[in-house]
Amino acid sequence: MRVNGENYRTVWMEGSTIRMIDQTALPYNFKIVDIKNLDELKNAIDNMIIRGAGAIGTAGGYGMVQAAMQSDDKSFLRDLEKAARELKNTRPTAKNLFAVIDGILKIAKSEPDTKKALPSVMGEGGRYADMDADACRRIGGHGAALIKDGANISTHCNAGWLAFTDWGSALSPVYYAVKEEGKSVFVYVDETRPRCQGSKLTAWELLQEKIPHTIIADNVAGALMNRGKIDLVIVGADRIARNGDVANKIGTYSSAVCARENGIPFYVAAPAMTIDPSCESGDFIPIEERSQDETLYVSGIDDSGKMSRVRVSPENCTALNIGFDVTPAKYITGIITEHGIFPASREGIEIILKAVK
Amino acid sequence: MRVNGENYRTVWMEGSTIRMIDQTALPYNFKIVDIKNLDELKNAIDNMIIRGAGAIGTAGGYGMVQAAMQSDDKSFLRDLEKAARELKNTRPTAKNLFAVIDGILKIAKSEPDTKKALPSVMGEGGRYADMDADACRRIGGHGAALIKDGANISTHCNAGWLAFTDWGSALSPVYYAVKEEGKSVFVYVDETRPRCQGSKLTAWELLQEKIPHTIIADNVAGALMNRGKIDLVIVGADRIARNGDVANKIGTYSSAVCARENGIPFYVAAPAMTIDPSCESGDFIPIEERSQDETLYVSGIDDSGKMSRVRVSPENCTALNIGFDVTPAKYITGIITEHGIFPASREGIEIILKAVK
Repeated sequence: MRVNGENYRTVWMEGSTIRMIDQTALPYNFKIVDIKNLDELKNAIDNMIIRGAGAIGTAGGYGMVQAAMQSDDKSFLRDLEKAARELKNTRPTAKNLFAVIDGILKIAKSEPDTKKALPSVMGEGGRYADMDADACRRIGGHGAALIKDGANISTHCNAGWLAFTDWGSALSPVYYAVKEEGKSVFVYVDETRPRCQGSKLTAWELLQEKIPHTIIADNVAGALMNRGKIDLVIVGADRIARNGDVANKIGTYSSAVCARENGIPFYVAAPAMTIDPSCESGDFIPIEERSQDETLYVSGIDDSGKMSRVRVSPENCTALNIGFDVTPAKYITGIITEHGIFPASREGIEIILKAVK
Repeated sequence: MRVNGENYRTVWMEGSTIRMIDQTALPYNFKIVDIKNLDELKNAIDNMIIRGAGAIGTAGGYGMVQAAMQSDDKSFLRDLEKAARELKNTRPTAKNLFAVIDGILKIAKSEPDTKKALPSVMGEGGRYADMDADACRRIGGHGAALIKDGANISTHCNAGWLAFTDWGSALSPVYYAVKEEGKSVFVYVDETRPRCQGSKLTAWELLQEKIPHTIIADNVAGALMNRGKIDLVIVGADRIARNGDVANKIGTYSSAVCARENGIPFYVAAPAMTIDPSCESGDFIPIEERSQDETLYVSGIDDSGKMSRVRVSPENCTALNIGFDVTPAKYITGIITEHGIFPASREGIEIILKAVK
């Protein structure tokens, strides 16, 4: 996608260096971080310099490639296994990350001559990145069919290209509709408290892509729906259960309920890999509680341009900071995947899972 | 109510000085502001040192009293008319403010001997304050009947005693249930972006009153309702239309929709004066757009304890900042007033209006 008029991916490789957009500096500074070794990559994932299932998967694949390039014949497999172990530990629930790492390990193990394995390992790292970008682009193509010219679209959190290798999930139909189909759209960006990924990342992406938008406090979305200002809601997903229930950033549930109440189509856009076949329904998705400081404080830059935080609460108060919520399938009009748009139901998910195989 | 263990009202008079709690300094500093003249009072209302319909009404009444005390025989009525005009201009839509000012003007005009009018004027200012506090206390008494021992209550924005002279509207049933009835309750406080009156004022009040509570991002409320964590929602109101539609702080609508979807009672608590008999339905309530900076920035204190703000959005972005929303009557289980609890319907409102007369 575009940044300052130039084409970028969220993460890529140049020689044996992994390069990525520093998402902790956005939207204030556009900075590229160079990753020279495994420790730096682990640190980048831990500190959310890179985030989002797709982007972390690609970064993990490149991390394996980098480990392979920096290894020698004698320790090749041992080095790759160490990198795999340590990278998996950064995000023990990240399916994409595990998939690409295991894919690369398998290639390495099946090739007795390590020098010969290297090109295949490198190929697999690049192939995963392209696959992720391509899946997202196809999500855009399918989803764009839902977007009428002049549509007003609501989205929550950041499920844009920064969360993937390119294109994104929830924002991909928007990009596709504008860039490939020449439609005009307007996006209402939920700021997405407590971490403000909407106002910080989604708004920044849309600004770069010159797509008309405005930021709203999360409280505003429902009222706009009720006033007929929103034609369509598209959000991403952290995990999709077998029955079509969707775990996503906290606030997705309220958005879905208000959308249905007002007869507004509510779509979830996600690569098929987001489906967890071992998860029968949303009831089995554990709810992560995060640090209460994310709610008690707000981070940004102060008037002097310095990264800072302000407390928006009394001292000695507590906050309950739930990271995501589960939206029951009945509120979801459809799930947009790279294979097409399917109903959010046990049957719909079954079809997607068959398409993957 | 209690602050640091001592009894306070939001605004009161000592001699010819009006004293009020500085709400712009909360929750960081507890400061009393002394108002010596009309200009200082206008400034206090303009800068939201005092806010909330009831509190501003009382302050306005005291402003008239102060003007009367500072006037002399010759210019008495002229001075009061000037004070009335200027005070009304600070909040041209504030019904309580207009009512108390007009009441005092009427007294002044009906008493040809200005020296004799002064005690009546002073009495009327104090009477309004007591009436506001008493109406709120009775809201608490009626509303407390809805609160079961051990209840988990959700509230939005600040409709506590800081918005009135004492007790508050939405929080009054909570205070009454705990203090007068010895019930145990837990309050989930919506932070209420963009201005965070929930995390800044409501949490501070509850902390002072030692009522167990926790702050949540507005996005969390719906998910908690869906997980069975909330038994009851009580919010305040800016304006109530004849058909029972309620205008209140932005986000009230989403809360009401999620409450109904989950079978949770949703109550609006407000003095009867909040009803606008000239307003047929919510469709006729104009929607106020506020400065987009309230959304693009967040204000609080920084780590050094200085009042500061941080930008949570890219430069050159816009925000749409709608100050309140309209919750249709069908989502409202009942309206808690000083006269009792009534259905949010044309019939219910008619009964309240009759009770007022």
